Amino acid sequence: MTDFFEGIDPIRYEGPGSENDLAFRHYNPDEVVMGKPMKDHLRFAVAYWHSFAWEGGDPFGGQTFLRPWHPQDSMETARIKADAAFEMFRILGVPFFCWHDADIRPEGENFAESKARLDEMIDYFGVKMEDTGVGLLWGTANMFSHRRWMSGAATNPDPDVFAYAGATVKACLDATHRLGGQNYVLWGGREGYETLLNTDLKRERQQAGRFLQMVVDYKERIGFQGTILIEPKPQEPSKHQYDYDVATVYGFLRDFDLTDHVKLNIEQGHAILAGHSFEHELALAASLGVLGSIDMNRNDYQSGWDTDQFPNNTPEVALAYYEILKAGGFTTGGTNFDAKLRRQSLDPEDLIAAHVGGMDVCAAGLKAAAAMLEDGKLEALRAERYAGWDSEDAQALLHHATLEQCEECVIERDIRPEPRSGKQERLENLVNRYL
Amino acid sequence: MTDFFEGIDPIRYEGPGSENDLAFRHYNPDEVVMGKPMKDHLRFAVAYWHSFAWEGGDPFGGQTFLRPWHPQDSMETARIKADAAFEMFRILGVPFFCWHDADIRPEGENFAESKARLDEMIDYFGVKMEDTGVGLLWGTANMFSHRRWMSGAATNPDPDVFAYAGATVKACLDATHRLGGQNYVLWGGREGYETLLNTDLKRERQQAGRFLQMVVDYKERIGFQGTILIEPKPQEPSKHQYDYDVATVYGFLRDFDLTDHVKLNIEQGHAILAGHSFEHELALAASLGVLGSIDMNRNDYQSGWDTDQFPNNTPEVALAYYEILKAGGFTTGGTNFDAKLRRQSLDPEDLIAAHVGGMDVCAAGLKAAAAMLEDGKLEALRAERYAGWDSEDAQALLHHATLEQCEECVIERDIRPEPRSGKQERLENLVNRYL
Amino acid sequence: MTDFFEGIDPIRYEGPGSENDLAFRHYNPDEVVMGKPMKDHLRFAVAYWHSFAWEGGDPFGGQTFLRPWHPQDSMETARIKADAAFEMFRILGVPFFCWHDADIRPEGENFAESKARLDEMIDYFGVKMEDTGVGLLWGTANMFSHRRWMSGAATNPDPDVFAYAGATVKACLDATHRLGGQNYVLWGGREGYETLLNTDLKRERQQAGRFLQMVVDYKERIGFQGTILIEPKPQEPSKHQYDYDVATVYGFLRDFDLTDHVKLNIEQGHAILAGHSFEHELALAASLGVLGSIDMNRNDYQSGWDTDQFPNNTPEVALAYYEILKAGGFTTGGTNFDAKLRRQSLDPEDLIAAHVGGMDVCAAGLKAAAAMLEDGKLEALRAERYAGWDSEDAQALLHHATLEQCEECVIERDIRPEPRSGKQERLENLVNRYL
Amino acid sequence: MTDFFEGIDPIRYEGPGSENDLAFRHYNPDEVVMGKPMKDHLRFAVAYWHSFAWEGGDPFGGQTFLRPWHPQDSMETARIKADAAFEMFRILGVPFFCWHDADIRPEGENFAESKARLDEMIDYFGVKMEDTGVGLLWGTANMFSHRRWMSGAATNPDPDVFAYAGATVKACLDATHRLGGQNYVLWGGREGYETLLNTDLKRERQQAGRFLQMVVDYKERIGFQGTILIEPKPQEPSKHQYDYDVATVYGFLRDFDLTDHVKLNIEQGHAILAGHSFEHELALAASLGVLGSIDMNRNDYQSGWDTDQFPNNTPEVALAYYEILKAGGFTTGGTNFDAKLRRQSLDPEDLIAAHVGGMDVCAAGLKAAAAMLEDGKLEALRAERYAGWDSEDAQALLHHATLEQCEECVIERDIRPEPRSGKQERLENLVNRYL
Ligand SMILES: [Co+2]
Ligand SMILES: [Co+2]
Ligand SMILES: [Co+2]
Ligand SMILES: [Co+2]
Ligand SMILES: [Co+2]
Ligand SMILES: [Co+2]
Ligand SMILES: [Co+2]
Ligand SMILES: [Co+2]
Repeated sequence: MTDFFEGIDPIRYEGPGSENDLAFRHYNPDEVVMGKPMKDHLRFAVAYWHSFAWEGGDPFGGQTFLRPWHPQDSMETARIKADAAFEMFRILGVPFFCWHDADIRPEGENFAESKARLDEMIDYFGVKMEDTGVGLLWGTANMFSHRRWMSGAATNPDPDVFAYAGATVKACLDATHRLGGQNYVLWGGREGYETLLNTDLKRERQQAGRFLQMVVDYKERIGFQGTILIEPKPQEPSKHQYDYDVATVYGFLRDFDLTDHVKLNIEQGHAILAGHSFEHELALAASLGVLGSIDMNRNDYQSGWDTDQFPNNTPEVALAYYEILKAGGFTTGGTNFDAKLRRQSLDPEDLIAAHVGGMDVCAAGLKAAAAMLEDGKLEALRAERYAGWDSEDAQALLHHATLEQCEECVIERDIRPEPRSGKQERLENLVNRYL
Repeated sequence: MTDFFEGIDPIRYEGPGSENDLAFRHYNPDEVVMGKPMKDHLRFAVAYWHSFAWEGGDPFGGQTFLRPWHPQDSMETARIKADAAFEMFRILGVPFFCWHDADIRPEGENFAESKARLDEMIDYFGVKMEDTGVGLLWGTANMFSHRRWMSGAATNPDPDVFAYAGATVKACLDATHRLGGQNYVLWGGREGYETLLNTDLKRERQQAGRFLQMVVDYKERIGFQGTILIEPKPQEPSKHQYDYDVATVYGFLRDFDLTDHVKLNIEQGHAILAGHSFEHELALAASLGVLGSIDMNRNDYQSGWDTDQFPNNTPEVALAYYEILKAGGFTTGGTNFDAKLRRQSLDPEDLIAAHVGGMDVCAAGLKAAAAMLEDGKLEALRAERYAGWDSEDAQALLHHATLEQCEECVIERDIRPEPRSGKQERLENLVNRYL
Repeated sequence: MTDFFEGIDPIRYEGPGSENDLAFRHYNPDEVVMGKPMKDHLRFAVAYWHSFAWEGGDPFGGQTFLRPWHPQDSMETARIKADAAFEMFRILGVPFFCWHDADIRPEGENFAESKARLDEMIDYFGVKMEDTGVGLLWGTANMFSHRRWMSGAATNPDPDVFAYAGATVKACLDATHRLGGQNYVLWGGREGYETLLNTDLKRERQQAGRFLQMVVDYKERIGFQGTILIEPKPQEPSKHQYDYDVATVYGFLRDFDLTDHVKLNIEQGHAILAGHSFEHELALAASLGVLGSIDMNRNDYQSGWDTDQFPNNTPEVALAYYEILKAGGFTTGGTNFDAKLRRQSLDPEDLIAAHVGGMDVCAAGLKAAAAMLEDGKLEALRAERYAGWDSEDAQALLHHATLEQCEECVIERDIRPEPRSGKQERLENLVNRYL
Repeated sequence: MTDFFEGIDPIRYEGPGSENDLAFRHYNPDEVVMGKPMKDHLRFAVAYWHSFAWEGGDPFGGQTFLRPWHPQDSMETARIKADAAFEMFRILGVPFFCWHDADIRPEGENFAESKARLDEMIDYFGVKMEDTGVGLLWGTANMFSHRRWMSGAATNPDPDVFAYAGATVKACLDATHRLGGQNYVLWGGREGYETLLNTDLKRERQQAGRFLQMVVDYKERIGFQGTILIEPKPQEPSKHQYDYDVATVYGFLRDFDLTDHVKLNIEQGHAILAGHSFEHELALAASLGVLGSIDMNRNDYQSGWDTDQFPNNTPEVALAYYEILKAGGFTTGGTNFDAKLRRQSLDPEDLIAAHVGGMDVCAAGLKAAAAMLEDGKLEALRAERYAGWDSEDAQALLHHATLEQCEECVIERDIRPEPRSGKQERLENLVNRYL
């Protein structure tokens, strides 16, 4: 127990009319939505790194937060940090959290020491998780902050770094497995390049493919039941990152025959940076069978870097959950807030309020999405638009026709296709009706 | 013969010192570069649409060009336009050109009439090509301008449009074949969506896959020896286009098992719009075995739409040809200028000068790229960076290791990887030495 | 009367629960908000150009709409178009509309004929306005579509074009005056450049300043009581436009001493293109005393051109009206929908539905903004943040201190400023409470 | 003396044919260009912060560089750093450098201690500058890194921070004055906002104006002969920065009547982020009389943050120097490399090579620009484009006409303006001739 959040009681649902800053107005964990408690749809997770390890620095300034667990260079402060974190999980009532190895333990002198420290903290977490009932949505290895990773982990020109990356993922996957993690995530912030001039794209892609295969093999060997997830991001920190977006990662998985073994963790901010809407990335992943989990943090559309802000626009969030519900909802996945406070938000209360606001927006979005889906008008209109394809002739055309037959049919029937309205504005209005 | 370009003589190579606006300063067609005449490396083509069919309109204004072949609504003006085009090919000495059906013939009342008109113009072209020795780099179907295509061609919700698209591609592929075209291109400007709300991504992707299979089958049936090329573009006119970039198209081709049958036509402007450098898209396509041809027109980095300008930055062009030379150069592909005059560039001389400048920049870039490759310093530095992977141990690590073995090796050898400089600035300086 | 909208009854307010596609759920014109009927806050206007003159073309395709008033090349179809427009104004119950000269009359052979046609249509409009009670929010001259304007209007290198522009604005301002227009707008889509290489920035700025002075002088001479408004936009169609954004136009007005005579018409889409949020541009204009009117159409954040879509995101719209209400609301200004249907939205009903949806989103946003302002929490928190400046000492520091005094004070008092939380997330949550 | 650059001899000019990585191929300091030695045109400066204080961190990773002057927390390492810096200035033969207070001295416990440390280091610098002949292009205060500045310096909601900022600028301006600095720069990375919700734009603008007035007053009081410069940047670190771009700062200066006292330091990277080309910002500043100095570091066009890379594209650099030469060249200003190594460029040699490459590209660009200007073709074509304005009638139209006279003239003369080609491609070709 710490007194970091002293005076802040567990957050309760008080309904839309509440004027309490620290109450849920929409998130009512046990309220049933489409046959399931809201909490089991949303499966919220807190990101350990942003909320507890990040100190408020940005490229133009250093630490703004002063926390009881600073400096983060000893096992003792690591435990104080963990205490505060679990205190927050309790206050928020979130079912899950997520971590990188580097968030939870100080770096050791060498791999063995780092691993020993990780293992010790995992024990510490294990007890706390048991006590609180909080679960691990996913673990992951930070293979981008230490200078050893500066030119990549699996895709490094130095085989020693590749080996070190393999050892690191093993340690993190073991730890995730021990804690009953639901998924294991790989994000390759340095798996890419700064300049093509010193880079062998083909070779690095091969390294990445082999590495992922090793991870999948190991996961199966140890009986980890969770899902292996790749988190796409187009750039930042690297100029170009190999896991650019959903479509790119899908092509990579096809190439290495891993579509059955790996799914995606899709972040709104990264979708935006790649030039896509969040719902596009979700819909595409769902259609390709690789939708796994989400990082529900927004980017500022007008800042060209990953701002990782808490979501606050309900209409946008609703469209995201709509795609998730249509795809059948999460299995091992969930809603992680890979979101950080603005660096001027110094107070413990800011940390709580930010999560409360984010959770509430997600709950409101989920309810709107569910209403939209249950009402069925949107899907009915979509189906109607393609209804012409339902006939036997159309199906034959699609599945068996040749160009010659197309031509014959067009000429014989003198086809002069008459376009029909796409009704975009009417559909947009319809969506607004559920919000 | 027209007198549209009256007074403009065929462009000649006069060397870097020339002060003649309408002379080549770098493009010397028969000059040998890396064992091949420059013209056979570059394989220049003029785009019929921008140079002859486009009238100077933009979203905020109409026609600025007044050409002898306006209005473009009769077969007579279509022939005048063709005469002017071949006149320009002769003046420039370009070996190739490219067209869409809609550029070269006026739209008919129905498919049959449009096709008849196309066939008539193809005859007209055939004679001119015979006379001038100009070849066809590629033909393609315009399946985005007419209102029938407003919701897509192959991916349309209306099966009649799918059939019409099949018939159209057949006609254009037949025409390309007749004219001895080196490639056939598909660009799907409306194969995408305006809003996800009315779109079934999965279904449309399936339609696109089947359609492409039909094209490939037909090509083989008629013995067309050219290459089928897809031209990626992320958006514009559609909000999202399925053929987003090289990586996306590659994943699509893998899914439909078409990587052996289809390659890519890569445009600088489209690379930029997708957030990539041109050289990235070229290098990636080469590494995946799908590099086919290029559209060498630049976009303004600061305009969010496809500005399709003539290339004018030699350093950038050099990096592009460097990737092409490294990949072995073009086979059926070439350098198409999918570039249009600025709409204020009204004069016939502008059209000539723009191509002369573009060709010259390409020639200068090619020579720099060849020097860089022949010198070998850049490739030697690249190879050296990855040299650690050449050892037997490193190869074993890459091909056969498990995560357990990685861990063992890191712990036993107490690996503490020491990063080495990536030398980016020195490499950039090196590149500048060849320019 | 036309039968273009046949079967569509005037839109009525039915409340949030309505399932009628063509009813208002939020816009209840006479409902009082902050002491004024909603309609007098919002002052909605329809843009004649997008809704009636635009035919559905984009840079990659032509006309998709087929309207009874096509082709738009005769006075007869101009009248049919006007009939349909006023029919729509009646159905929507909008109090205002806006036009360019080129939207409402076919271009003549020369200026005199164009002007005569304009005058004739103004008469036609006058009668209709009298009959329906619909007013003119603003008129404006289209000085960007015809090829004569290709290199600018007031900033053209050709003085004849400058004169033509002066004559054109006179005609349009006269017409606006005759119709009792509330404002007159200048948008300079071609007042900028395509390439700096052929441009004399300084000279063109001087031309623009003089031109604006002429307009202001004329306005006063004829006793036009409306406001002269400049509409900023950073680029498109030109590569660079002089009226880039609010701050740029303000500097220009200062230079030519016109801040008392000219205000701004601010468009969300143009704010976005310039890298600003809409609320930033509104707040900045208000703080500089130049906030005039708004174009409430959104851009897609991920399309690099002006998509001019109907607003559909209530939280964003609420923040815009918040700035407007804080600034005291509109005087001569209003809410113009400079928005166009997607080109696939072919049906008359789409046109109605798009406006109904947009008006409803604005009404919902206005109500949220009013609640936020009336509640006062947000403004109280803002004031509190700056409260330190209220003391006499702080005011003396601000208004009279020297650097020496700053130093003295810091050293003597050993000032070590302790930062306070900016509370961003809590403020964002607070805003969501009113939505 | 340090041995950090051991083995690296002073860089010499060896001409374009040199294959020496560490030689100038274009920068020949005493070579006369347009009547002045190249070094006096270019006036190169090294940025102390990027080259000596930055440790290689980015938002996703920490220090990569290991330097003899790390950790940077003592006066002793501050002196070692200074020794290495002056060693590099000697090797490069640069005439100038630039600093922030925070780059050169460790932060003290309070203002007095920080100032004492600054003064001590200034003494240390003074001796070294005397010894080497290296001058100070500009000094500046880092009012963005320490947490006290997190909500702004002059625009902070806390008057204590405003006072602290005043004291800080006094200290830095005093130091700059003592070292004979040619300019003093203000860059307001935190003078802006993270969210409009907690910001009073108007009040903060007022604070900024007053602050700048204090600086100008103080400068005059102490007889500092250098120029006060503002460096615009649109965003990053803040979401919005008040000194957005040249036009914005100009409007601000006009408002506070400071256009005669303050000029601009324009950075390519910041121009790009604001949506402008570098040459646009330079040309605009020149036309408004506020062009002061430049930061000649490029941004990657495709990364949405300030990448601060060394320039390497000669054609772009040439266009920048063209504007500078046209404006009469630098007076107190110069060419600062506000550029940092890529964080993988670990070696001392990288630091030298990066500057050598940058200086060479600038020299090549300058020579091309001078040739272009001396040849006069470009300016002749520009003048010709506007020649219509030279007549007496045209000047009368411009300076004295009314809208009525415009109309009269158009109707009487039946003016039908015929557009002339803007010749953009021919001008672009012409520019390439000098490269
Ligand atoms: Co992120
Ligand atoms: Co994430
Ligand atoms: Co293009
Ligand atoms: Co193209
Ligand atoms: Co617009
Ligand atoms: Co507008
Ligand atoms: Co910068
Ligand atoms: Co700078």
